Amino acid sequence: MVQKLTSSIPPFLWDKENLFLLDQRQLPFKKYYYKCSSYKDVVKCIKDMVVRGAPVIGLVSGWGIVLAVKEAKKKNLKQESFVRFIKKVVAEFKSSRPTAYNLFYIIEKLQKLILANVNLGLEKIYNLIIEEVKNCEQENYQSMLKIVKFGVELLKKNSVVLTHCNTGVLACGAVGTALGIIIEGYKKGKVKHVYVDETRPYLQGARLTMFELISNGVPCSLITDNMAAYVVKEKQVNYIITGADRIAKNGDTANKIGTYNLAIIAKYHNIPFYIAAPSSSIDTKIANGSQIKLEQRSDKEVKYVNSKLITLKDADVLHPAFDITPAELITAIITEKGIFSYPYNF
Amino acid sequence: MVQKLTSSIPPFLWDKENLFLLDQRQLPFKKYYYKCSSYKDVVKCIKDMVVRGAPVIGLVSGWGIVLAVKEAKKKNLKQESFVRFIKKVVAEFKSSRPTAYNLFYIIEKLQKLILANVNLGLEKIYNLIIEEVKNCEQENYQSMLKIVKFGVELLKKNSVVLTHCNTGVLACGAVGTALGIIIEGYKKGKVKHVYVDETRPYLQGARLTMFELISNGVPCSLITDNMAAYVVKEKQVNYIITGADRIAKNGDTANKIGTYNLAIIAKYHNIPFYIAAPSSSIDTKIANGSQIKLEQRSDKEVKYVNSKLITLKDADVLHPAFDITPAELITAIITEKGIFSYPYNF
Repeated sequence: MVQKLTSSIPPFLWDKENLFLLDQRQLPFKKYYYKCSSYKDVVKCIKDMVVRGAPVIGLVSGWGIVLAVKEAKKKNLKQESFVRFIKKVVAEFKSSRPTAYNLFYIIEKLQKLILANVNLGLEKIYNLIIEEVKNCEQENYQSMLKIVKFGVELLKKNSVVLTHCNTGVLACGAVGTALGIIIEGYKKGKVKHVYVDETRPYLQGARLTMFELISNGVPCSLITDNMAAYVVKEKQVNYIITGADRIAKNGDTANKIGTYNLAIIAKYHNIPFYIAAPSSSIDTKIANGSQIKLEQRSDKEVKYVNSKLITLKDADVLHPAFDITPAELITAIITEKGIFSYPYNF
Repeated sequence: MVQKLTSSIPPFLWDKENLFLLDQRQLPFKKYYYKCSSYKDVVKCIKDMVVRGAPVIGLVSGWGIVLAVKEAKKKNLKQESFVRFIKKVVAEFKSSRPTAYNLFYIIEKLQKLILANVNLGLEKIYNLIIEEVKNCEQENYQSMLKIVKFGVELLKKNSVVLTHCNTGVLACGAVGTALGIIIEGYKKGKVKHVYVDETRPYLQGARLTMFELISNGVPCSLITDNMAAYVVKEKQVNYIITGADRIAKNGDTANKIGTYNLAIIAKYHNIPFYIAAPSSSIDTKIANGSQIKLEQRSDKEVKYVNSKLITLKDADVLHPAFDITPAELITAIITEKGIFSYPYNF
């Protein structure tokens, strides 16, 4: 399913039978939707980063569970086999991308609902969880609206903002978190210019955030990640705002690799560093950042750009997909429940 | 002139008639030498980054002046025209890449020598400046040896080092500055592992530094620039060492974009941040970093990787080639004249 590029591009669509996922790896050059007919298709798309962004990964995995129940229904699985199957499916989703907490949040919610209602039969379970995923979508949407409202209130007029990775509609499925604040901030006269880290190796900033900002008419400039300190100083950046993939009880935050760099740069220049994320990103079972599992991805994603090698073929390459920003570097964490500041105790 | 890749690859060669420049944009994939028959060829190659690295740019522009005098000789220019021509040539070299000071240092030295000896006639001037450029090469070589010696003394055994851009033989024409220290440090048991910033947008780290390290058998890993803080913390980096393009009287240092980020990251993690550079990089006429002219390069060099767009075609993009690291973030500046530490007063 290929569509024309417009500013309004839902990252996923459920057509009552199948899940369609916008291939974010091809943006902004092509708008192509993957059709997922089975939960395995969805797991693969999450692993391969067809979709990304913690809130979207969460919602999409919810629809993946819907597809799994549909498959169980078709196979007419008995109760015992069904329970075994669902547990296997849940485990597969959890290992697809281990860092983002929203996936765990939604998947565990759905698993609980299924196990509590397993006697009702597959047809009823199917309808129940469709309803629950829709509730999650609604909850996500309402959360984002509040995050944006709270975030915009924090900003002073005519601010210059720097952001990292992509935290807009594409990542969140609704108005976005950090990027939602920035776009709404622009509409309200709070933001006058945005600097966007290209965000190597996947270039989510260059491809996705620049696309969302330009589509919304927000003045913005792309920079390479290593220009951040220069830009903060020379362009008088007022705020650095990013999203989060998982937040520990003490506020330590896992987010896209490079976030920790930015938080240190913000501290050195004495400007606020804000995290914006729904409370479903907060994992209160984890005391601090050292306990967050950081996904290590393939070195090929660093070594090849546009299918061409950028270094020696046998070079050793690191590819942590995330880093941990210690709570003391985070001026505030903006959630739908309000604005929290250091020291955190969620 | 295409040659097989080996670990010993001089960045330039003078064959008594022409200057051959190793095209560093094609490394490590191809070893190709550009033949420069006129000074204009050399200016173009510097502008287009066929050669880069402050010390090499300096020496190569010296050979460019030799070519200019050769051209003047061939045209049999009278004294007055010759002086006008040389001044024009010098101005062209100075504007080719405005930040690196070594170019200005050598070019001004040669101009002075030419003007002082203009009565001797072109043949004698030609021989004089060939001799002087060879002296500069020798001086450069001796400087690097001392820089490496001093730098290695600073390191403790089995250190983990992070570096940025390329400061090896390719950048310096001799043993290198920061990378020279690192390679010699490895041979002496002082360095056990090196993390290399890929150094967007030109990827000098990924292409050139990884090549030099691997050629020398030094254990190394490539990282994207935004992984630096993660690596410093998680891999217990002991030192960050880079080169310099121009150092002001007070120690503020212009170097490849991203250096300022690293200096801030080093400070936050309380590890030393060292600059290694010959004293010909120190511009005592400039009081502090705010007076250093930072080259702004084409946005195309950021927007296209391997000839393909990485963002929207009309996106606004910044491309400062350098940034300024304030002196107070630099633990020591290692030159051939010794190790200097903050506060600096060159």
